[in-house]
Amino acid sequence: MSDAETRRIVLASRPEGEPRPEDFLLETAPLPEPGPGEILLRTLWLSLDPYMRGRMNAGKSYAKPVEIGAVMEGGTVSVVERSNHDGYRPGEMVLGMTGWQTHAVSDGTGLRKLDPAAAPVQTALGILGMPGMTAYTGLLNIGQPKPVETLVVAAASGAVGATVGQIAKLKGCRTVGIAGGPEKCRFLLDELGFDAAVDHRAPDLPERLAETCPDGIDIYFENVGGEVWNAVFPLLNDFARIPVCGRIANYSDTAPPPGPDRTVQLMGTILTKRLRIQGFIVRDFASQAGDFRRDMSAWLKEGRIRYREDVVEGLERAPEAFMGLLKGRNFGKLLVKVS
Amino acid sequence: MSDAETRRIVLASRPEGEPRPEDFLLETAPLPEPGPGEILLRTLWLSLDPYMRGRMNAGKSYAKPVEIGAVMEGGTVSVVERSNHDGYRPGEMVLGMTGWQTHAVSDGTGLRKLDPAAAPVQTALGILGMPGMTAYTGLLNIGQPKPVETLVVAAASGAVGATVGQIAKLKGCRTVGIAGGPEKCRFLLDELGFDAAVDHRAPDLPERLAETCPDGIDIYFENVGGEVWNAVFPLLNDFARIPVCGRIANYSDTAPPPGPDRTVQLMGTILTKRLRIQGFIVRDFASQAGDFRRDMSAWLKEGRIRYREDVVEGLERAPEAFMGLLKGRNFGKLLVKVS
Repeated sequence: MSDAETRRIVLASRPEGEPRPEDFLLETAPLPEPGPGEILLRTLWLSLDPYMRGRMNAGKSYAKPVEIGAVMEGGTVSVVERSNHDGYRPGEMVLGMTGWQTHAVSDGTGLRKLDPAAAPVQTALGILGMPGMTAYTGLLNIGQPKPVETLVVAAASGAVGATVGQIAKLKGCRTVGIAGGPEKCRFLLDELGFDAAVDHRAPDLPERLAETCPDGIDIYFENVGGEVWNAVFPLLNDFARIPVCGRIANYSDTAPPPGPDRTVQLMGTILTKRLRIQGFIVRDFASQAGDFRRDMSAWLKEGRIRYREDVVEGLERAPEAFMGLLKGRNFGKLLVKVS
Repeated sequence: MSDAETRRIVLASRPEGEPRPEDFLLETAPLPEPGPGEILLRTLWLSLDPYMRGRMNAGKSYAKPVEIGAVMEGGTVSVVERSNHDGYRPGEMVLGMTGWQTHAVSDGTGLRKLDPAAAPVQTALGILGMPGMTAYTGLLNIGQPKPVETLVVAAASGAVGATVGQIAKLKGCRTVGIAGGPEKCRFLLDELGFDAAVDHRAPDLPERLAETCPDGIDIYFENVGGEVWNAVFPLLNDFARIPVCGRIANYSDTAPPPGPDRTVQLMGTILTKRLRIQGFIVRDFASQAGDFRRDMSAWLKEGRIRYREDVVEGLERAPEAFMGLLKGRNFGKLLVKVS
């Protein structure tokens, strides 16, 4: 790549079902010039997260879709390359939402400066960033973990799930993680301190999960949907809390599944078991960012919370890595090292 | 009836679908004798409530089913006829759960004395009792009404719905009641002060409800399920709260409805709109009984809350009245005047 060029990945077409490589397009353009009061950012790290699948759809959601031809949305850590802005000097590191591209021009809106001495800068996209705060706020506000309760979380080796399980453990819960394959399951037990791990690829997942949760489930942190939800549902205890954070198994559904319609059963069970099912996204709890960063920084320092990163080199590999994320192929927080 | 006899209605068989007259049996028995430390109660009022349909089923729920041959469960107001208990004198009025029968023997467990001078005694089964407290606790704890929000409640001329609508209005909401037929709808507007009323028998219920809720729905107090839920669901606003109190339209379902399975859509919408759907029963909030009675007594005294009773004379008419309740044939809190 020439220094005078920028590369970016734009949405080429809206996927029907699972995204395909041709839904993404790598473009090259002349390096943009920062205007008065603006800075030029060079992307160091790009975060890949499941929510991005939703942005590829046209439908109404909690955020606007990415337009066809527009740069894919994404959180980034960047370095200031040039500055016409009094508040920024070249070499400073910032967290932003500059998307799937090697460079961006910004007037500073929505940026947050990072201190590379405090923590590796890319943790601002993971354990100290959106995924970590998603786990923290959803679990504490809606899940409300209490000692000896059983918590279940799927995608448990991923950025959010791993953090949910570890915070719940700190709060005294018995923690059960669901992950894909024996290597991830071992990681849950040996590295993250989960009390039990269940492989979601097991053909008898409902039976395995039931055996692993002899006292039922008090908190199910929902981030996958699909078959895991079906296995969890009959095991929910009275007064169980279900923070609904994501439904990655259903993001690429093109039609509702066949009947019967289990909505009536779900609503009936919500009543008889007095379940609390509540959706949230991290920005609903924006006012708790200070609490989150204080607590999580302390837990990291004390070695009570661990995290794992899955790093892909090069922007051009972002689409493939993202498609793998939707299939659970990542192992830890998925990051693209852009430059 | 001879003075030496008691009559009671027992569960003769578990209904498949809607209860039929032959599922109930009226029995006569000799008047029971209170033993040492016991009292003989004569039932004055029996409350009929939708939850009783659940007790007729064998399945696990939040309470044990009524056994075949056992007296149907129900809240009652009774007068003490004879007493071998130091704490009770003949002529005193008590609230209890003595069931569908003319007499009961009690050792005092679970009884609460009523002061006939404070309020008509049967209000302890309605506005000042379980239905009123169901409305109060579910709405305030889960619904969390705020000024200018839109609240929708169905069965809005019934014991719970009418109270929900009036408390929400006191809290500053715009209140929309759904009821069956023009007479009940007029009652909502003219007597209970709802801002709008929608007839659930209208063939175009979804369109009518959408017109009536131009700003969407912030709180839906769920006590009916069925077609009303289907009409409400697309109108729910971001951060809507849905206290799930009952599902009367679905209580007699014998099989889940045909597909497609809309569970995935429901869970997806919970996420994107950040809905809170939470089941409850009144005894979950037992600790708030004092607050409830204080607030509701004051509102009644100030004329800010009104109620309507639908009184059926004679225990033998209880089954018919109960079957009518499940079809929405009552108009106000349904009570049986037993003696």
